[in-house]
Amino acid sequence: MNTIHVSASRGYDVKIGHGLLPTLGAEAAKLCKGRTACIVSDDSVAALYEKTARASLEAAGFSVFTYVFPHGEQSKSGENFLMLLRFLAQSHLTRADLLVALGGGVTGDLTGFAASCYLRGIAYIQVPTTLLAMVDSSVGGKTAIDLPEGKNLCGAFYQPYLVLCDIDALSTLPGEIFRDGCAEVIKYGVLGSRPLFDALKGDYDLMEVVTRCVQMKRDIVEEDEFDNGARQLLNLGHTLGHAIEANSDLTLSHGQCVAIGMAKIAEAAVKHHICSAQTRDEILEVLQKFGLPTETDQSRESILATALGDKKRRSNTLTLIVPQKVGECILHPISIEELPDWLL
Amino acid sequence: MNTIHVSASRGYDVKIGHGLLPTLGAEAAKLCKGRTACIVSDDSVAALYEKTARASLEAAGFSVFTYVFPHGEQSKSGENFLMLLRFLAQSHLTRADLLVALGGGVTGDLTGFAASCYLRGIAYIQVPTTLLAMVDSSVGGKTAIDLPEGKNLCGAFYQPYLVLCDIDALSTLPGEIFRDGCAEVIKYGVLGSRPLFDALKGDYDLMEVVTRCVQMKRDIVEEDEFDNGARQLLNLGHTLGHAIEANSDLTLSHGQCVAIGMAKIAEAAVKHHICSAQTRDEILEVLQKFGLPTETDQSRESILATALGDKKRRSNTLTLIVPQKVGECILHPISIEELPDWLL
Repeated sequence: MNTIHVSASRGYDVKIGHGLLPTLGAEAAKLCKGRTACIVSDDSVAALYEKTARASLEAAGFSVFTYVFPHGEQSKSGENFLMLLRFLAQSHLTRADLLVALGGGVTGDLTGFAASCYLRGIAYIQVPTTLLAMVDSSVGGKTAIDLPEGKNLCGAFYQPYLVLCDIDALSTLPGEIFRDGCAEVIKYGVLGSRPLFDALKGDYDLMEVVTRCVQMKRDIVEEDEFDNGARQLLNLGHTLGHAIEANSDLTLSHGQCVAIGMAKIAEAAVKHHICSAQTRDEILEVLQKFGLPTETDQSRESILATALGDKKRRSNTLTLIVPQKVGECILHPISIEELPDWLL
Repeated sequence: MNTIHVSASRGYDVKIGHGLLPTLGAEAAKLCKGRTACIVSDDSVAALYEKTARASLEAAGFSVFTYVFPHGEQSKSGENFLMLLRFLAQSHLTRADLLVALGGGVTGDLTGFAASCYLRGIAYIQVPTTLLAMVDSSVGGKTAIDLPEGKNLCGAFYQPYLVLCDIDALSTLPGEIFRDGCAEVIKYGVLGSRPLFDALKGDYDLMEVVTRCVQMKRDIVEEDEFDNGARQLLNLGHTLGHAIEANSDLTLSHGQCVAIGMAKIAEAAVKHHICSAQTRDEILEVLQKFGLPTETDQSRESILATALGDKKRRSNTLTLIVPQKVGECILHPISIEELPDWLL
């Protein structure tokens, strides 16, 4: 097992290893005073892991409630958030008790935000069961729900008390969801680690890959917990990726869109003489090795319209994350008028 | 004008004086980078003060949106919270922009919580227009909404950027709402200030009274921002008051119930030889001077049942705030089994 400590406004460990889910109860008992826990999970993940999580918590002396909701992004809604909070109140959870987010990014974001608000803040543990959640959303304390007006518009910076990454959970992941996480893993390589990137080209050990990504995320979060600077680096591939994802009406996954976004920004970086054609080709090859798309049939105009519409709401500038070479990216602020020039 | 600085996780000023509302725009311009502001207010208060607030913000260069909701506690709901957030998103507020809570406690709590969540946190200014909000809810960063399961069950600790108490706003307050605030003012006197308490017996200057209460609240908040200890002192009169309020189906106001709660705990304190009969009588006299009730026709059993039902959910102990003499109270933890003995 690897343990990575995150020093944020609240410090906590990320534990990464095989067979960790059955240790949940013992870990939870060390961290929280109360003896009531609520597991939050979607129907797909609950069917696989709720029983193990519950048994472990009960063996450690917890009374356990479980809140199960339909899987999918549409459950990251205000309505589901309020239903979860009502469930916690009806289950009489106190400020000393605990939430457990058992699942992927939707579950982690929803549960973390609920934990930040319920009685103005109770403890929660992230138990990510997807690669994406392990390397990205479960670490760093960004929690949120969506509004009809856009994703993640309502949330909190609220750090978990523990993140438990059981690598065994990845064995049950559908291929597409696993590849989704791979896009984010490749992103970490391009962002800041040539060795990680190279490892992905060959046979790699999943536990070591997750560990390396979490270390990188930890470093960035410690530098910029509240997302005012360096944390923007994590948006590599996301500026265009978000627009492509919104345009696709959820027919493309987040990871697929990030992959296309990375490919496109690498292309543009070549055009602007920021990176070499060889760097771009390396990035495209690794994306393709993992079965990720690097092109879309969406028109340039429709991507641009969505990207601009999204950004105009917020401000007149945006910061592109642009690769210089594998392992080195720069923050490149542009005005929104310059965006068309960056979308080939 | 009196200025009181609060040193919490974010420091800010509370300004107390006459004619402050027209200075809102200039103050806001100093505090926030954006130039879009959203005023949040209920229909009663908006009719009186929205125009002045808007004109002041516009004169300082802000584009102003206003979100108006029906007055009353029922607007502190999850549904109204989500509607407000959608309004902010539709109005394209950015992280650099500003919310202004213009009104009483419901408005301040709702707006503060929305500010804490929208884009994971934007600036907000409290402009309390009731005595209760000036001396209590607008200072200290406790924000919340209600759930059907109970009041204030969902919220955040999130400090405002400025609190602007325009004493002139109190001149338009209906008598009952003014008296509501008086109950909390008397509470501060009993809690920690014999001079404040004595001032209330005679003619008093409202601006000085508000200032003294805010100073006391500031001291308590600085000692215990996140409500783990000393801040419980502010619950004087509230343990039984909340139960009486819940039983009354909102026919009694918060202040009336706090007054009854204070009277009852003073009675009980005499019985338990913690304070003298003379202290109790002094407290009852001042409550009565301000037209506040000290008795209820609710049965002892029904108050007890509600108080116990409410507390059982949270834990098996509760902390009573008990007066020793005017200006000195103690935290007195009891098990819930002991509560009947404290309710005469």
